[in-house]
Amino acid sequence: MLIALFPGDGIGPEIVAQARRVLDALGIDGLTYEEGLVGGAAYKAVGHPLPPETLDLAKRADAILFGAVGDPDCDSLERHLRPEQAILGLRKAMGLFSNLRPAKVFPELADASALKKEVASAIDLLIVRETNGDVYFGEKGMRKTADGLREGYDIMSYNEEQVRKIAHQGFHAARARRGKLCSVDKANVLETSQLWRDVVIEVSAEYPDVALSHMYVDNAAMQLVRDPGQFDVIVTGNMFGDILSDQASMCVGSIGMLASATLNDSNQGLYEPIHGSAPDIAGQGKANPLATVLSAAMMLRYSLAMPEQADRIEAAVARALAGGARSPDLGGTMSTVEMGDAVLATLN
Amino acid sequence: MLIALFPGDGIGPEIVAQARRVLDALGIDGLTYEEGLVGGAAYKAVGHPLPPETLDLAKRADAILFGAVGDPDCDSLERHLRPEQAILGLRKAMGLFSNLRPAKVFPELADASALKKEVASAIDLLIVRETNGDVYFGEKGMRKTADGLREGYDIMSYNEEQVRKIAHQGFHAARARRGKLCSVDKANVLETSQLWRDVVIEVSAEYPDVALSHMYVDNAAMQLVRDPGQFDVIVTGNMFGDILSDQASMCVGSIGMLASATLNDSNQGLYEPIHGSAPDIAGQGKANPLATVLSAAMMLRYSLAMPEQADRIEAAVARALAGGARSPDLGGTMSTVEMGDAVLATLN
Ligand SMILES: CC(C)[C@H](C(=O)O)[C@@H](O)C(=O)O
Ligand SMILES: CC(C)[C@H](C(=O)O)[C@@H](O)C(=O)O
Repeated sequence: MLIALFPGDGIGPEIVAQARRVLDALGIDGLTYEEGLVGGAAYKAVGHPLPPETLDLAKRADAILFGAVGDPDCDSLERHLRPEQAILGLRKAMGLFSNLRPAKVFPELADASALKKEVASAIDLLIVRETNGDVYFGEKGMRKTADGLREGYDIMSYNEEQVRKIAHQGFHAARARRGKLCSVDKANVLETSQLWRDVVIEVSAEYPDVALSHMYVDNAAMQLVRDPGQFDVIVTGNMFGDILSDQASMCVGSIGMLASATLNDSNQGLYEPIHGSAPDIAGQGKANPLATVLSAAMMLRYSLAMPEQADRIEAAVARALAGGARSPDLGGTMSTVEMGDAVLATLN
Repeated sequence: MLIALFPGDGIGPEIVAQARRVLDALGIDGLTYEEGLVGGAAYKAVGHPLPPETLDLAKRADAILFGAVGDPDCDSLERHLRPEQAILGLRKAMGLFSNLRPAKVFPELADASALKKEVASAIDLLIVRETNGDVYFGEKGMRKTADGLREGYDIMSYNEEQVRKIAHQGFHAARARRGKLCSVDKANVLETSQLWRDVVIEVSAEYPDVALSHMYVDNAAMQLVRDPGQFDVIVTGNMFGDILSDQASMCVGSIGMLASATLNDSNQGLYEPIHGSAPDIAGQGKANPLATVLSAAMMLRYSLAMPEQADRIEAAVARALAGGARSPDLGGTMSTVEMGDAVLATLN
């Protein structure tokens, strides 16, 4: 099995290194690794955020373990050369459409949330976000209005096939959890959302055992603060999912804890922490590697079909936290490497 | 001065009635009122959510005091007949582009927030949301793809003039407050946002005394949970403003407390609570009227140039809360009318 390692920018290399140590310590036979350049690092080295060799490696691999991309040096480049295009390009070129973002509070960290402890502790939700369509990938550009004014535009759209695919992902996930699916849209304003809602309702006929509800995105943003414990699985589009999943991650406490998976139809997957490249602390050994370590666990579970190995990692992380392992984002002083050490020490 | 009263649907009539009582108690000479039909109520009475007589009244009025629209009976109507079209139609037809949504915690209610008390208490922010453009008002519809699939689409766009106008509103508001403006966009993905950011930066040259920052919308949704006290004024587009302002309102505790104003170039304004029509509790006397009462205060301040009268209302609300007035959403048992009574009792 081939794993592509894409450390990327900022804290990316430091956190991916710790995830790699944990993977190595599992002693799994037959895993091979190849490293690739992505993001600002790739742009600086070879002039493109997603070079052809990187994309080729990604396609050959069974799974991608991704650090983070984003580099302030690249902010004024043309859009197609910016670091973010690496992640958008990989999602699109490989058909990685199903972005799974679980949010759950580790009991030891319930105090770290800005939410009251009893509100935060109740969080155990999964956001299933579509990542191949929506306003992200429609035609976009700058044009002039009839009056000669500069105008920026982006076309938002979903077709029924795209919605059907992600809806099935949402229903499946709900079935494997507590059987509740909340579809989030803005059908009172958007035609894209109206189609979304219509198709989700059509698909729901195949899942009579799942309780489906619909919520407008503005209300969902409210409910995620008021009572996040009410949610089991949320399924939503690319744009709303981007916003709500970051919001949910912060409800959990530190964004340094949250892993994600993005899958395509052949179960190839890209695994990455939800947080970004944090250029302000890059290279200082301050980054929390646990979101990446937990992303490696998701990789074992979803793309490599090794659920017991995934369990081993997740249990080790829980024990490390219970034992007091805390990086600065969790209110402690442990370095990136020390956090990795703490996980390794409890791995069994 | 003519005030148009548009109670609308659900709890709308109950809460507007209390705001009217408070306005009457101020004893201001020369205020006249005319009531109009909007939303589902208007559809049921005359077949359209925004009948011509209503729009005509709105245009003649100096200000509109609006309850809420939204009626589950109307959910399957064609889009242009749904209750929400009343508010969207008024915003567009009257050029009401500058939606001001202040969020601040009344000290007595700091415990009501799902956020920790110290986090919630620090909230004192204003969201300036553009409400005449964006994906709300672009071309939209259903079409077929080349493969014959149903597809919903909505065009998102802003031109430089639209952004310039709302940017000025944001800078002005920041200047009158703590001098900090945060512009929220998704410029790493959207061309609409790139133009937004470019123009906000251009406009900033006229406001060297205001500290401008930029934040991606996903990060803003995170920061509004993590540390909402960091924000003074947030300026953003229609779609992101819809989501973030509802999120911020819930951070404050009850959405039953938050007022809003939407202004056009001639200072005509539409004043409404941020919350919706709450059909589940309509007609039961359980709704909290304070957001509507506080919207009436904003109306006096912005459209009627009576800041002292606005102060009188706001002070009375604060005293009523300090005196223990609590509707069910605030953890109490007082009825809509009793909440109105409590404000009247402390008005001086
Ligand atoms: C970097 C950016 C393009 C990306 C997105 O918006 O999808 C990120 O925010 C994410 O959520 O993975
Ligand atoms: C009712 C709806 C169309 C409206 C909006 O999205 O603008 C509402 O949510 C608001 O925020 O005023």
